Amino acid sequence: MDLIVYLAGEIHTSWREELKRKAVERELPLSFVGPQENHDLSDDIGENILGTQPNNVIKDDAASSVNNLRTQVLMQKSDVVIALFGEKYKQWNTAMDASAAITLNKPLILIRPDSLVHPLKELSNRANITVETVDQALEVLAYIYE
Amino acid sequence: MDLIVYLAGEIHTSWREELKRKAVERELPLSFVGPQENHDLSDDIGENILGTQPNNVIKDDAASSVNNLRTQVLMQKSDVVIALFGEKYKQWNTAMDASAAITLNKPLILIRPDSLVHPLKELSNRANITVETVDQALEVLAYIYE
Amino acid sequence: MDLIVYLAGEIHTSWREELKRKAVERELPLSFVGPQENHDLSDDIGENILGTQPNNVIKDDAASSVNNLRTQVLMQKSDVVIALFGEKYKQWNTAMDASAAITLNKPLILIRPDSLVHPLKELSNRANITVETVDQALEVLAYIYE
Amino acid sequence: MDLIVYLAGEIHTSWREELKRKAVERELPLSFVGPQENHDLSDDIGENILGTQPNNVIKDDAASSVNNLRTQVLMQKSDVVIALFGEKYKQWNTAMDASAAITLNKPLILIRPDSLVHPLKELSNRANITVETVDQALEVLAYIYE
Amino acid sequence: MDLIVYLAGEIHTSWREELKRKAVERELPLSFVGPQENHDLSDDIGENILGTQPNNVIKDDAASSVNNLRTQVLMQKSDVVIALFGEKYKQWNTAMDASAAITLNKPLILIRPDSLVHPLKELSNRANITVETVDQALEVLAYIYE
Amino acid sequence: MDLIVYLAGEIHTSWREELKRKAVERELPLSFVGPQENHDLSDDIGENILGTQPNNVIKDDAASSVNNLRTQVLMQKSDVVIALFGEKYKQWNTAMDASAAITLNKPLILIRPDSLVHPLKELSNRANITVETVDQALEVLAYIYE
Amino acid sequence: MDLIVYLAGEIHTSWREELKRKAVERELPLSFVGPQENHDLSDDIGENILGTQPNNVIKDDAASSVNNLRTQVLMQKSDVVIALFGEKYKQWNTAMDASAAITLNKPLILIRPDSLVHPLKELSNRANITVETVDQALEVLAYIYE
Amino acid sequence: MDLIVYLAGEIHTSWREELKRKAVERELPLSFVGPQENHDLSDDIGENILGTQPNNVIKDDAASSVNNLRTQVLMQKSDVVIALFGEKYKQWNTAMDASAAITLNKPLILIRPDSLVHPLKELSNRANITVETVDQALEVLAYIYE
Repeated sequence: MDLIVYLAGEIHTSWREELKRKAVERELPLSFVGPQENHDLSDDIGENILGTQPNNVIKDDAASSVNNLRTQVLMQKSDVVIALFGEKYKQWNTAMDASAAITLNKPLILIRPDSLVHPLKELSNRANITVETVDQALEVLAYIYE
Repeated sequence: MDLIVYLAGEIHTSWREELKRKAVERELPLSFVGPQENHDLSDDIGENILGTQPNNVIKDDAASSVNNLRTQVLMQKSDVVIALFGEKYKQWNTAMDASAAITLNKPLILIRPDSLVHPLKELSNRANITVETVDQALEVLAYIYE
Repeated sequence: MDLIVYLAGEIHTSWREELKRKAVERELPLSFVGPQENHDLSDDIGENILGTQPNNVIKDDAASSVNNLRTQVLMQKSDVVIALFGEKYKQWNTAMDASAAITLNKPLILIRPDSLVHPLKELSNRANITVETVDQALEVLAYIYE
Repeated sequence: MDLIVYLAGEIHTSWREELKRKAVERELPLSFVGPQENHDLSDDIGENILGTQPNNVIKDDAASSVNNLRTQVLMQKSDVVIALFGEKYKQWNTAMDASAAITLNKPLILIRPDSLVHPLKELSNRANITVETVDQALEVLAYIYE
Repeated sequence: MDLIVYLAGEIHTSWREELKRKAVERELPLSFVGPQENHDLSDDIGENILGTQPNNVIKDDAASSVNNLRTQVLMQKSDVVIALFGEKYKQWNTAMDASAAITLNKPLILIRPDSLVHPLKELSNRANITVETVDQALEVLAYIYE
Repeated sequence: MDLIVYLAGEIHTSWREELKRKAVERELPLSFVGPQENHDLSDDIGENILGTQPNNVIKDDAASSVNNLRTQVLMQKSDVVIALFGEKYKQWNTAMDASAAITLNKPLILIRPDSLVHPLKELSNRANITVETVDQALEVLAYIYE
Repeated sequence: MDLIVYLAGEIHTSWREELKRKAVERELPLSFVGPQENHDLSDDIGENILGTQPNNVIKDDAASSVNNLRTQVLMQKSDVVIALFGEKYKQWNTAMDASAAITLNKPLILIRPDSLVHPLKELSNRANITVETVDQALEVLAYIYE
Repeated sequence: MDLIVYLAGEIHTSWREELKRKAVERELPLSFVGPQENHDLSDDIGENILGTQPNNVIKDDAASSVNNLRTQVLMQKSDVVIALFGEKYKQWNTAMDASAAITLNKPLILIRPDSLVHPLKELSNRANITVETVDQALEVLAYIYE
């Protein structure tokens, strides 16, 4: 049974590549989708398509329109959602995607470091399971096929 | 027409009291609900009910269970959701509640300071409207009755 | 049985007042809600709340945010929707509200003049019933209580 | 990931062919569906199937029945909806399809000329993104795969 | 706890009056709604509102539009549906309402004479319960309060 | 685009074979599903699986359980529903399936002879389109691909 | 804010009376509904209404029809569900009601003794919160109002 | 038409293997999914992934998180659910899965021995059909293709 996994979360480390590589090594029939990982492109995509905007607030809103359409299309196609929180940044998109997954009844695996237990406690409580590493998340996915 | 408004967001300032007082002054038929505003109680409610837990992770999860049940009951009863972000803290509960409101088709008013435009841009783009002050949010609510 | 009726459609004639008055005369237990009927206010509400916007496109988008939140709140509360098309203007909000009502399984009464039969034929076909006058729409509502 | 795109909107220019051709050139795995583009057939399909109707109102309603069934089947199959407004005509079907897409949580790209900003402002505000050209819409679709 | 009961089914006997009277005698907090019971009015309501139609097929379709709007409004308000089949007539409206109730997850009580067991077997199997008399249906409703 | 069509309705004539044959002749990418067409098997399937039942009412209920499971599986897989009424029999299963399709937002084509216009008027009004012959229904399906 | 609480679970002890009494003492605006607590009536209600059935399997099915209708009506009206498991009996109705509540997004409080931790672990994991005593469940409800 | 069948129920006998083998023998286009059948793995999977937990309650909750995610993914993919109850154990997971299937409108076949008629009567009444053997359940599945 092929499954599609949406990988929400920070785009500053290569955790998605690591997860994909290990899934291939284990021959799991998973395909992965996720947000735009090129940060500059993600910020500029609104102006790239619509042209220069009058100020940064409008520029950000234009970029968000395109990013949100992308997320909506791909998350609706997915069977499972993984949301990874790192120690830096606000990561409100990650929280937004995780909460949307919960509300849409998409099974959710949350990955977060030990240091974020307290501020993420309500979101963690609503996730199907919370783990600390990418390897653990992959174990959860692999268990579906065992 | 009476409406119920869920007030998600930070619990360290008195913005809810300000909003409620001004709604009364303008004689708007609104009632307000929201999360537990007593921060210590919110952290301890799990152990208050279930007794001492084996460690802080479990303690946090127990408290979250009760907080999340409360939020789920009250948000399902509400007609409009306001989510306020301040400049401090991760505020992932606020993001979780805002995203749940969007996904449930509850109309959402986002309040955030100018300094948070960029990190909140995707969430802001999916809200019905984003404003910067409690007064502006009240103007939006008042407009429903004009 | 009290019912709430959302009155979508043009705001340049007094058809809503006529409908409300006649409903009162017939002692029907109906209450009516609808869009902002003050056209200038409807266009300016974004800037009234958010301040001057950089250009007219952004000004229009700001106003629409508030108008759409209002519509979403009130239509979700309503049991029946009436959408009236007149001979002037594009009236795309009316079409948007009518189609939203159909998709939400809100019963829909369409009012349109004979001259608009052809361009409105698909929307008319999906409405529960299409009539030509406000009096006829009121007859449909009254029949619920007969 | 293959996606199906429903192309709502006017049928008097060849914008759909242009979009399809450019999608093929860019090797995007998209397939496109949409309304009947043969205007006469679209008007006559009711009588073609059911025989001559007693008057034009009934003829129009018969044609609409078949057109609406077609739209319902194809839109339910689609992952993204594009709705294009031109400067002529009432285009209420386009508005109906756009609003249905929004209400069904189908991601929506609105294309409209600068001259229609004001009358389309509420619909534009509810779309995921509004652009002015077919090329821009294609850029949005292409971004899903970048 | 007040409940609203939609009474689908034949309109040629006084079973609804009997049920209402007995519910009052037992002081059950029930209110009852249902289709138009004046058969001639039910057939003529389309022409009463829209004027003379070109033929009987169109006349029937016009009347059905108004009857279906009424049913949709009232069934959406109801907590329980009772559908009574008698020995005469096709009673396809009754079957339509019963099946709509099932699909909407409205609890359904089916009343039918012993002679109709076989032709109604699939519908009966999907109802919550099937009884033979109005008194039995009232017993089921009364049990909710016991 | 392949579509699955559920063929509800009477099982005493070969209308399904006719429709399937003509769809093949026109090379339409349709596949067809429907109820059990072997009438005796449809009546006996409960006892075939569960053994002899205590009386005919229970026998009928057992058979209905299996028939209804089959219908539920196949209708949930289908993109379009056709419901054909003939002049004989009560055909309440056909009405049940047609109403379920409407309530599930499955596009519905109703086929009924002229003699049944009046008793089927409410169901016909809620169908997407009503025709009189299998050929007409096929024309509607073919139009999706034109 | 008044809330309705459905009390699923065993009917052999007076836990519901205890909960109701304590809720009154604390002046919580709660009303409580639940299954038939008279065990004999719950077993006999099918035959009470429908008359003697051919065997015990059919008798049980008849009673279940009425009990399930009651549960469906009352659970759809409720805002929160409490499910209490005791140490005796299979209690599959309690599990059925608890799982239905979860799937319907009704907030669920599970009460079970320490001895049932292991066999109830998956259901407990999906509940909002699991407690061991009626007093703890009441604390959770009271917290909604704090 | 390929169908996916979720096999809920006890994991102590080889009923799933028997069912799969016989489905292959009859060349039915069915694929089967279900819970983890390795009991020890099912109990230990939480600690396998997350490491040693502070006590057995937390260990059980961790294991349940993974088991529930697996069930949610696979049941959402399935077209039919079979739930088998044996004579031993509480089997609350089986009841949970069966009730979830009912509430999600997944067709449900219940298998239970004669000895469990009474305690399972309400769940049995809500299933599409209840049988006593694996062979009977397979007959029901085979009937979909007859």
